[in-house]
Amino acid sequence: MTPDEFRANGYALIDWIADYLGRVGTLPVTSEAHPGSIRAQLPAHPPETTEPFERVLHDLDRIVVPNITHWQHPNFFAYFPANISFPSILGELASAGLGVQGMSWVTSPACTEIESVMLDWMAELLGLPERFRFSSAHGGGVIQGTASEATLCAILAARWLATDGAVNHVGAASMTGLVAYMTSQAHASVEKGLRIAGIGTEQIRIVPHDHFFAMDTDALDRMMTDDRSNGLIPFFVNLTNGTTSSMAFDPVERAAEIAHLHGAWVHVDAAMSGIAALVPEYRWVNNGLEHVDSYATNPHKWMGINFDCDLFWTAHRSALLGALSILPEYLRSRALEEHDAIDYRDWQIPLGRRFRSLKLWFTLRTEGVRPAQHMIREHVALTQELSQWVIADGRFEIAAPHPLNLLCIAHRGGNASTDALIERVNATRQTLFTRTVLDHTSVLRWSIGARQTHREHVAETWKLVQSLAEPHPVGIQ
Amino acid sequence: MTPDEFRANGYALIDWIADYLGRVGTLPVTSEAHPGSIRAQLPAHPPETTEPFERVLHDLDRIVVPNITHWQHPNFFAYFPANISFPSILGELASAGLGVQGMSWVTSPACTEIESVMLDWMAELLGLPERFRFSSAHGGGVIQGTASEATLCAILAARWLATDGAVNHVGAASMTGLVAYMTSQAHASVEKGLRIAGIGTEQIRIVPHDHFFAMDTDALDRMMTDDRSNGLIPFFVNLTNGTTSSMAFDPVERAAEIAHLHGAWVHVDAAMSGIAALVPEYRWVNNGLEHVDSYATNPHKWMGINFDCDLFWTAHRSALLGALSILPEYLRSRALEEHDAIDYRDWQIPLGRRFRSLKLWFTLRTEGVRPAQHMIREHVALTQELSQWVIADGRFEIAAPHPLNLLCIAHRGGNASTDALIERVNATRQTLFTRTVLDHTSVLRWSIGARQTHREHVAETWKLVQSLAEPHPVGIQ
Repeated sequence: MTPDEFRANGYALIDWIADYLGRVGTLPVTSEAHPGSIRAQLPAHPPETTEPFERVLHDLDRIVVPNITHWQHPNFFAYFPANISFPSILGELASAGLGVQGMSWVTSPACTEIESVMLDWMAELLGLPERFRFSSAHGGGVIQGTASEATLCAILAARWLATDGAVNHVGAASMTGLVAYMTSQAHASVEKGLRIAGIGTEQIRIVPHDHFFAMDTDALDRMMTDDRSNGLIPFFVNLTNGTTSSMAFDPVERAAEIAHLHGAWVHVDAAMSGIAALVPEYRWVNNGLEHVDSYATNPHKWMGINFDCDLFWTAHRSALLGALSILPEYLRSRALEEHDAIDYRDWQIPLGRRFRSLKLWFTLRTEGVRPAQHMIREHVALTQELSQWVIADGRFEIAAPHPLNLLCIAHRGGNASTDALIERVNATRQTLFTRTVLDHTSVLRWSIGARQTHREHVAETWKLVQSLAEPHPVGIQ
Repeated sequence: MTPDEFRANGYALIDWIADYLGRVGTLPVTSEAHPGSIRAQLPAHPPETTEPFERVLHDLDRIVVPNITHWQHPNFFAYFPANISFPSILGELASAGLGVQGMSWVTSPACTEIESVMLDWMAELLGLPERFRFSSAHGGGVIQGTASEATLCAILAARWLATDGAVNHVGAASMTGLVAYMTSQAHASVEKGLRIAGIGTEQIRIVPHDHFFAMDTDALDRMMTDDRSNGLIPFFVNLTNGTTSSMAFDPVERAAEIAHLHGAWVHVDAAMSGIAALVPEYRWVNNGLEHVDSYATNPHKWMGINFDCDLFWTAHRSALLGALSILPEYLRSRALEEHDAIDYRDWQIPLGRRFRSLKLWFTLRTEGVRPAQHMIREHVALTQELSQWVIADGRFEIAAPHPLNLLCIAHRGGNASTDALIERVNATRQTLFTRTVLDHTSVLRWSIGARQTHREHVAETWKLVQSLAEPHPVGIQ
C-alpha cells in the first residue's frame, strides 16, 4: 500500500466508521453466528495473491458486521458498556501511526510524560485524593489495559510488601501463609489475579455480604482476626465500588480501617462505577478512597475512551516497583539512573506498551468531560425511571439497590421464569441482556451505559420485555 | 465532535500520519527531552474549555514529535524493531471504530473466529508444526499483547500441569518444590513472569551457555537430575530462539528432549526472530518446534503488524484453560457450554480484548507476506555486509554469531571504549543503539529491523560510528 493509497483507503475507512456508528442502531444487536460459522466463510489457507483494500472494506460489511455483537448499539444492555468516541478513535489512530514503544521513559519520553499528566488530570476530574497523584510523596498512576491487570498489579505489590520483598527471591515458600479477602460479589478477575499470583482458593476468604450485596465488615474483622490467630498473614483485601452483578458498593472506609489494623493492602476495584465521579452529585462513589492503597477505574467503560484504558493509581509506588522491576543491561538508561524517570514497564505486567494516553488527551481537549457527564446523568436518570416502570408492572421485582445505571430485575414467577424471559428477549436480537444470580435468585441485568442509548431505546426495550414476560406469575418466591 | 467533524479530522490525521512516515527519516532519531521537560509543556490542570482538533494536531508536531524516540526512523538500530505498515494501521483504526469486546465467543463471534483463523494462517505461513493448529487434537493459538504475557501464560499452564491443578486450590503450598530453567541470555520477562507466578530467583536455575550464548544442554540435564534427586520438581524450561542480547538460538530439539524426560513444560520465546520463518531459507529458526509445548513470536516486531500483536501457540490448550479459566454466572453462555466455542479470555491474563486480528487480516489480504519477506531478506543481507565492514576495520570485533539481523560489536579498546562510543554516537541523535553485556564484554547492539532501513542508512551510520570510535585501540581484551 503506497502512501497515496493509504490516504485514499484511510479516508474510506474513516467514512465507513462514521457510517457504521450512524447506522448501528438499525442493526440487530447480536448475530446469527454459531461456533464455526464465521471460520467457514474465510479461506482455510492464507491468500496467495493480494486484493485491493475495497474488497477488505466490503468484507467488513459482508463478514464482520453481521457476525459481531454490537457493543455500540443503543439497545446494548448486557455486561457493561464499552463506549468509544470520535476523538478517542482518532487517538488510537495517532498512536498506531506514530508506532512508538513506551516501555520506559527513554524509549519515548512524551509517551510516558503525557500519560503521567493524564493520570493527574483524571485524578483531578474524578476528585481522587492527593495521595494518588504524582505531586504526592509516594503516589502515582498508570494506564493499564484492563482492570484485571490493575487488580493483579495491586495483588503483586501487596504480596511484595507482605513478604518484605522475599517473594522475589524465595517465591512460593514466602507465600504459604498469605490470605486474601473479598466478597462473592467481587469480579472473577480478582480470583484469577490471585490464582496467577499463586494464591489458591483455599487462601481466599469469601467475606459475607449484607442484603445489599456489600461487604459485612464485622465478618471481615472476625475472619482476619481468626486467620492471624492461626498464624496466617492477611495480605490483601479487594473492595468493589460497583460490583459486576448488582453494582453494590463495599463500605470502603470501614473495611480499609479493619484491613490496615490487620496489616493488609486495600485495593478498590471501581472498574465500572468509578467514572461516575466525573459528575459532582455522584462523587460519593469515592467515599473512603483516602484510606486505600490502590484504586482502578475504566474510562473505556463509561467515559467514551476506547478500550483499552484502565486507570490504576497507587499510594505506594515503591511497593509496585519492588514487585515488578527487573533491570537487565539492555534496558538500563541514564534517565532512569540519574533522574528517577518513570519507566512504566515496571508498573505493569507486559514490557511493551502503546501510546494510550493520546486517547485521553485528544478527548479531554476536544470534548472535555461535559459529554461524559451528560451521558452519565442521562443513564442514571433512565435507570431510575425504568425502575418505576418495573415496579408498576406487578410481575417483577427489583433485586438490588440501583444507585447508578444497573437494574437487576427478577420475575416473580421464579428463576425459571426470569431465565426463560432473558432467552426470549435476547432471541429477538433487538437487544441484549446478561443474566446473573444474586444469592440464588436469577436476575436480568439491565445495564444502561451505551453512548447512543436514550430514553426511547429503554422505553421500547421495556415494552419488548413486558410483551415477552409470562403474563401471570406462577408463584411468588 | 460531530460525525462530519470526525470525517474531516480523520482525513487530516490520516494525512498527518502519511506525512509523518514520509519525513520521519529527516528527523533526529531521539529527542532532547529530559525527565519532566514534556510535563512542563502541558497544563497542570485539565482544560476547562474545548479546543478544535487542529490545535491537537498542531501539538502532535509541537509537543509529541520533538519528544519521542522515532521507532519508525530508518536509523533506529536500538532494542528491536517495532514495525508498522499502512494496512496494519487501518486494521487498528477499524478495531477502534467497531469498539467490540472479544473476551468470549458470544461477546463478538467474528472477533474470535477471525483471530483463530489468522493464527492458523500464520502457522502455515511460518511453517509451524501441525500440533499448534486448531485442526490438531489439542492445539491452538491466540493473539497476546506481548511476548511477556505469552511467557507468563506458558508458565501458568506449566504450573497447573506440574501441580495437577492443585495450584488453583492450595496455591503456594503446591509450588514450593517447583524449579524453572533458562540461560542468563533469556529475556528479563521470563524472570518477571516467573516472579509474578510466585517462582522466586531461588527456584530458577540459570543454565550455563556455550560460547555462542546458547544453552548447554548437558548442564541442563545435570541440573534437572540434581534437582529431582533433591526432591524438587522441574516444571518449566524457557528456550529462546533469538536472544535479546545477541540473537542466540538455544538447541531446541535436544533441550526439549531432556526437559520432557524430567517432566517439564518447554516454552520457546521467539519474540524477535521467529518471524524470520516467513522466508523459506530462514525456516531453520523453527528447528525442534515439533517437540515443544508452547511457542510465541511477534509480528509486531519484524513483520509490519502494529504493536500489540504477539502470536502464542500451545499444543496443550487444556492446560492453558485449566490454569486460566474461571466461569462466573455473568460470563456463562450457551455457545461455550454446548459447542465448545473458544473464549479467548481463558487464553490470556486480562479479561477484555480488542479486535486485534484485523491488523493481520488487512495486511495479509492487501499486501501478503512478500513485503515482509523482502524486508527480512534485505535486513539479513545488510547485517552480513555490515559484518564485513566491521571486520575490515581493525578496531572492532564481532562478539557473537549473527545469523540474522543483529550484530554485536565490541571495541578492541575494551568496555570503556565501547561504552564511550555508544554514548558519542547516540549523542548525535542521528541514530540510536542500545548497549548490552555479553559475558562481561560491553557491546554495541546493531539491530537492523526498521521497515524504512535500507543500505544507505546502514552505510552512513557505519561511517558515523567509525568517525566517533577511538582511532587506536588502547589494548586488546
